[in-house]
Amino acid sequence: MRCDVVAVGTELLLGQIVDTNSAWIGEHLALAGIDSHLQVKVGDNLERIVAAVRATLAQADAVIMCGGLGPTQDDITREAIAEVMGVELVRDDAVLARIEAVFAARALGRGPMSANNARQADVPVGATVIEQRRGTAPGLICPVGDKVIYAVPGVPDEMKEMLERAILPDLRARAGTRSVILSRVLRTWGLPESTLAERLAGRIEALDQEGNPTIAFLASGIEGIKVRLTAKAGDTAAAGALLDAEEAQVRALLGALVFGVDDETMEHAVGASVAAAGWRMAVAESLTGGLVAERLTRVPGASSWFRGGVVAYDPEVKFSLLGVPRGLVVSSDAAAAMASGVRRALAADVGIGVTGVAGPDESEGQPVGTVWWGIDLDGSVTTGSLALGRRERQRVREFATINVLDAVRRQLLDLATRS
Amino acid sequence: MRCDVVAVGTELLLGQIVDTNSAWIGEHLALAGIDSHLQVKVGDNLERIVAAVRATLAQADAVIMCGGLGPTQDDITREAIAEVMGVELVRDDAVLARIEAVFAARALGRGPMSANNARQADVPVGATVIEQRRGTAPGLICPVGDKVIYAVPGVPDEMKEMLERAILPDLRARAGTRSVILSRVLRTWGLPESTLAERLAGRIEALDQEGNPTIAFLASGIEGIKVRLTAKAGDTAAAGALLDAEEAQVRALLGALVFGVDDETMEHAVGASVAAAGWRMAVAESLTGGLVAERLTRVPGASSWFRGGVVAYDPEVKFSLLGVPRGLVVSSDAAAAMASGVRRALAADVGIGVTGVAGPDESEGQPVGTVWWGIDLDGSVTTGSLALGRRERQRVREFATINVLDAVRRQLLDLATRS
Repeated sequence: MRCDVVAVGTELLLGQIVDTNSAWIGEHLALAGIDSHLQVKVGDNLERIVAAVRATLAQADAVIMCGGLGPTQDDITREAIAEVMGVELVRDDAVLARIEAVFAARALGRGPMSANNARQADVPVGATVIEQRRGTAPGLICPVGDKVIYAVPGVPDEMKEMLERAILPDLRARAGTRSVILSRVLRTWGLPESTLAERLAGRIEALDQEGNPTIAFLASGIEGIKVRLTAKAGDTAAAGALLDAEEAQVRALLGALVFGVDDETMEHAVGASVAAAGWRMAVAESLTGGLVAERLTRVPGASSWFRGGVVAYDPEVKFSLLGVPRGLVVSSDAAAAMASGVRRALAADVGIGVTGVAGPDESEGQPVGTVWWGIDLDGSVTTGSLALGRRERQRVREFATINVLDAVRRQLLDLATRS
Repeated sequence: MRCDVVAVGTELLLGQIVDTNSAWIGEHLALAGIDSHLQVKVGDNLERIVAAVRATLAQADAVIMCGGLGPTQDDITREAIAEVMGVELVRDDAVLARIEAVFAARALGRGPMSANNARQADVPVGATVIEQRRGTAPGLICPVGDKVIYAVPGVPDEMKEMLERAILPDLRARAGTRSVILSRVLRTWGLPESTLAERLAGRIEALDQEGNPTIAFLASGIEGIKVRLTAKAGDTAAAGALLDAEEAQVRALLGALVFGVDDETMEHAVGASVAAAGWRMAVAESLTGGLVAERLTRVPGASSWFRGGVVAYDPEVKFSLLGVPRGLVVSSDAAAAMASGVRRALAADVGIGVTGVAGPDESEGQPVGTVWWGIDLDGSVTTGSLALGRRERQRVREFATINVLDAVRRQLLDLATRS
């Protein structure tokens, strides 16, 4: 089974947007055991889209078209598919009603629905609609002889949801695939990829020989290094058992470096620890400007363990609101005082303080990338520092945030292990 | 002149690496006045690479191949080009000597040069070498009849350097191009793409006829809709003048919907307005959990106009720290009290308050996506609300943030216009 990809949009050819969609699609096709040999970007031009789809469909069993389903006159994927199929477009009343309902619900503060939006309800005769659950444009499943063209919106969230819900199952059914491929990601923070690979050298060698499961590294910037395990087996249970066994071996070698599995983020790990201890947390931030609080409150249900925070950007706010003693604010003492001050002010059990120099200029004679953090666990205070080097301002802030969250996670872990 | 792109590498199809190279190449081709209609990703398979190059070269005047010039057995771009040209590969002594010199210089702490590396000195008969100045693999200029195939390494730095130094000048010389292309982005917030297109229908029609400058829309989620103007002229000054004239026309139709140009973000616009008024700002946030403060503090130099913020996640923090009267906290009154409370507590001139329901569950009987904001401008308070609909939690928070920032921007704009 071979499924190629045609990404549609002049903005992709012009480099105004990088086509990350086809990379994501390629990854998920591979995990589903489906080959993808050619991925094409083409502009918003009917003749060229039609030619690209015909050429790919001549070689492949299926083609996924991504983009060009929007409401403007540039969006002509529907027309191109109808031409390849040799059929007309017909407006689908059920789809139209849904689009109108979405617009009605969003109407407050926005303009009315324009006539152009109704074009999103046009469907080639013989095609099946993939219900749109997030935006307005539905997806399409369009048979062409014994082959098939799928169309999904270019908005990544909408594309991914439709691919997982409708297209991958349809492709697997067509392929008659029986073997199951499962994948699991162990998320780590604290070591560079090369050192991580040395730590896991024994497993990497063994798996290279066995060939199943496989292990791969994915450096993900401020999300750390991901260790991806992939297993193939006759059914889901058998593939899951292979992953369980390998995960145990990898965890034995990595220990506390692993902070989460699959979609579990660092803020999930911190929140789970705080909640498990029955504690409530508060954060005082300077250089990170709200990033630490923002990441913690991404976690659904954070209100049960997160009290709030103070963004003490101006030194005066540190002195007046948090009771930090007047003096240098990029220092261990200031970070500790911020942690204790916010814990008291917000009546929390755990207080975090972060101060430092985001740049572009140095501050208090300290270079860009200097960070001090303090953690007040129920009255017991520890501090630490980072030297993040001369990075771009936002990078300094992001790396400071993930490092501070990891420090909190490890302290809570130590505490839970000791008790 | 049309130049298409073939990116080579199985890792691109599998989504292990996102192909950012062809986006960069596409942007620079466009700026050089050269069309690019098709960009293809193909794996490390000789037959398929040859087929992809033949197919693109049949349509285009030139093809840039990116990747597959490395030293491993997977790297077969040289072989594929030789097959398309119908010639042999011959080892180039001068290139080989340079590769050996690079290895000798790097030898410290690395292994010796492997025999595979010598393959990087293989050149198709009739091709010209593009000297490699950063790594080891040279680029190639390979004539095929009156058309041409260029080959560059997949390492971005090496690719970019060769493209700018050798390939773009060669393409421009072949095209006989003298013209310059410039582009400018007007960033808007407040109307959906379709309505924006209707507002600009007159300009779009006129420009479609004239063909220069051109206008295009780019929906960018929480960054709004971008309106991109692109002009072609004999020199930079003339292209800039065309853009200036068109920008004036578009701004006349869009007014305050435009919040920035090119890289200017919403937080830049807000910060500039606050700084221009000589004011200082403070933010009180609930559902956005620090996002508003985080975006504002992304702006370098924010410390001159941003005092700080309070993340009042728990209602108790709103009551105790901000003086919000006890009662319902998802309300106009609470948003207003948060704005005034944080303005007072942080001794600022402008206070912002944001409260609402991020989800996943409703709160105080209000549905997910309900947002109330308050703005206290030196004691004068206004409030407003949003119904963001049933989106994913983080989307609600992000849309709430950009909408609130836009409301602040517009109020400051009104004030500046009136005074």
